Amino acid sequence: MTITLAVDAMGGDKAPFVTIEGIALARKKHPTILFKVYGLESSVIPELKKHGLWETKNIQFVPCSEVISGDTEPRLAIRQFKDSSMRCAIQAVSDGEANAVISAGNTGAYMVLSKLLLKTIPGLQRPAITTLLPTKDGKGVVMLDLGANVHVPADVLVQFCIMGQAFSKSVQGVPNPSVALLNIGSEELKGTTVLKEAQTMIQKSGAVANYKGFIEGDDIFDSKVNVIVTDGFTGNVALKTIEGTVNFFGGLMREELKRTWVSKLGAFLSRSAFQAFKKRLDPRRYNGAQFLGLRGISIKSHGGTDGFGFSCALSVAVDLAEHKVNESLEREIESLHEKLIIAESSAGLE
Amino acid sequence: MTITLAVDAMGGDKAPFVTIEGIALARKKHPTILFKVYGLESSVIPELKKHGLWETKNIQFVPCSEVISGDTEPRLAIRQFKDSSMRCAIQAVSDGEANAVISAGNTGAYMVLSKLLLKTIPGLQRPAITTLLPTKDGKGVVMLDLGANVHVPADVLVQFCIMGQAFSKSVQGVPNPSVALLNIGSEELKGTTVLKEAQTMIQKSGAVANYKGFIEGDDIFDSKVNVIVTDGFTGNVALKTIEGTVNFFGGLMREELKRTWVSKLGAFLSRSAFQAFKKRLDPRRYNGAQFLGLRGISIKSHGGTDGFGFSCALSVAVDLAEHKVNESLEREIESLHEKLIIAESSAGLE
Repeated sequence: MTITLAVDAMGGDKAPFVTIEGIALARKKHPTILFKVYGLESSVIPELKKHGLWETKNIQFVPCSEVISGDTEPRLAIRQFKDSSMRCAIQAVSDGEANAVISAGNTGAYMVLSKLLLKTIPGLQRPAITTLLPTKDGKGVVMLDLGANVHVPADVLVQFCIMGQAFSKSVQGVPNPSVALLNIGSEELKGTTVLKEAQTMIQKSGAVANYKGFIEGDDIFDSKVNVIVTDGFTGNVALKTIEGTVNFFGGLMREELKRTWVSKLGAFLSRSAFQAFKKRLDPRRYNGAQFLGLRGISIKSHGGTDGFGFSCALSVAVDLAEHKVNESLEREIESLHEKLIIAESSAGLE
Repeated sequence: MTITLAVDAMGGDKAPFVTIEGIALARKKHPTILFKVYGLESSVIPELKKHGLWETKNIQFVPCSEVISGDTEPRLAIRQFKDSSMRCAIQAVSDGEANAVISAGNTGAYMVLSKLLLKTIPGLQRPAITTLLPTKDGKGVVMLDLGANVHVPADVLVQFCIMGQAFSKSVQGVPNPSVALLNIGSEELKGTTVLKEAQTMIQKSGAVANYKGFIEGDDIFDSKVNVIVTDGFTGNVALKTIEGTVNFFGGLMREELKRTWVSKLGAFLSRSAFQAFKKRLDPRRYNGAQFLGLRGISIKSHGGTDGFGFSCALSVAVDLAEHKVNESLEREIESLHEKLIIAESSAGLE
């Protein structure tokens, strides 16, 4: 089967400059993929020509007349902008013309349009932003929700556990992924009432086969579990705190290494190590998160990334489409339907 | 005025070994401070003797017959253990016999006992765990709540802003500290309903003189504001995520530097830079957080720290006592009383 990606060329800080550069890079890595490129003729065609992608095999340009900008309110994105590049690209997945859609544009608008056009998988209440974070053992950890849902009730957290479990099985190939809830202590008594309720639901229903209880923020990278589940507010704060810490850490390190000529020389000799280190932590390499739980693969790229970062998000889309992550999730939900209903029904019974 | 510290010698993973070592180190740094040391005779006296602190000037041992352990439930810590080292040390501050109390023991028990014996400052609803985190400009940022309150309503968040503001004025000497709420986006529409409500309260009441709106996790170290306010759940997740990221980062760096002999040599030449870097990020140097908002200075040390780390927390206690952080906070609350009542009264009026 040939994979087709629907790409919103107009989303992100430097679109379509970055998006088309990303496609050019991704095309070399994935020569069999068909890229359907959505955007304004006037700005996209020159970029495609610049990269020698105009009227080429594997690149299909789909002209649109509108663009959703960073400050377009989600409700306006739904009611207006019917011919926007973002909406038309999502529609392609909904119509079965593409296996996945990708945008670096307005997250709120992209989220509601994806929900509107793709709909949630039957049995699931809400999608969650899901991604793989790096870990010490190099295998990565699935983390969700990274920002789709600010307020998450306990039964939805339980669903997020199942979603993460299916993602880990399908993408990481882990047969029985271990799952934990992010909390501020590993003891049963700690944390919010919602977390305690979700834990009780999981324990009573047996919905999560390999549930490991609570995990703390300092264990995110420790490879203790395959999947970490949290609400979108906490997940987003954690993700951005990681980003901030890495930047701060890197800045301090550079500052100290520049202090004396001996340490400058040392840094020069160690430059291959620094480069390898930088590469392993390069945020661009972890770009591309899925709105998991929708009936179609919808990938969000960071709006401020560059061409390489966008190409990484395109690779995530290819990977998820090839692994048929959504079919795997649908099967998982189908087989756990009874247990999920038991979990929901135990709400508030404590 | 001579500062007196009441030290719970029995709290923490390796007590009293670590606590007495910490006192020995702190005593050299603060030769005029009187340390009142609370603990079991049988285990504390040998440690004091080991460090030559037994029957010395500036060290006063107060024998207690009980110890609150790491798994003592907070309610039992209140009802029983009346002669515990933790409780007696807090009582000393309540009785005006010490300027600050410090413990590395059971956080939950220490928190409730501090609340019980010291009480909250009139006008304030709840204490918040408050500390200074390092920043790019080296001046540090005041962050609260780092774990005292899991569920925090909007009016309490507004009080946390005032508390952080007073802390910054008194400890950092900033005349008009800037304050921000931790959120998942800087736009007004983003975030939880509680955060939006708190922001409205602040804007309507003018309670926070230099309010800067919302800030995101990646800005924690950027010196954009003097004070960052959040609920105890989010704050604790953020703090532990920083810890986890620093460990992960350091581990990867060491791994890469060991790969080739050239980079090993480079790392050897740069060792002074690495040492300086390590020192600047040493978590022990940031040990010691205050239960801010109580009528007495109550400092929590990390339970797993070593002697140096405990001595740093003792220095925090000395610093806060010298700066009279609580008197400053009481004055602040007094002068802002009217505005705080206006803020509270605007709850739910939107």
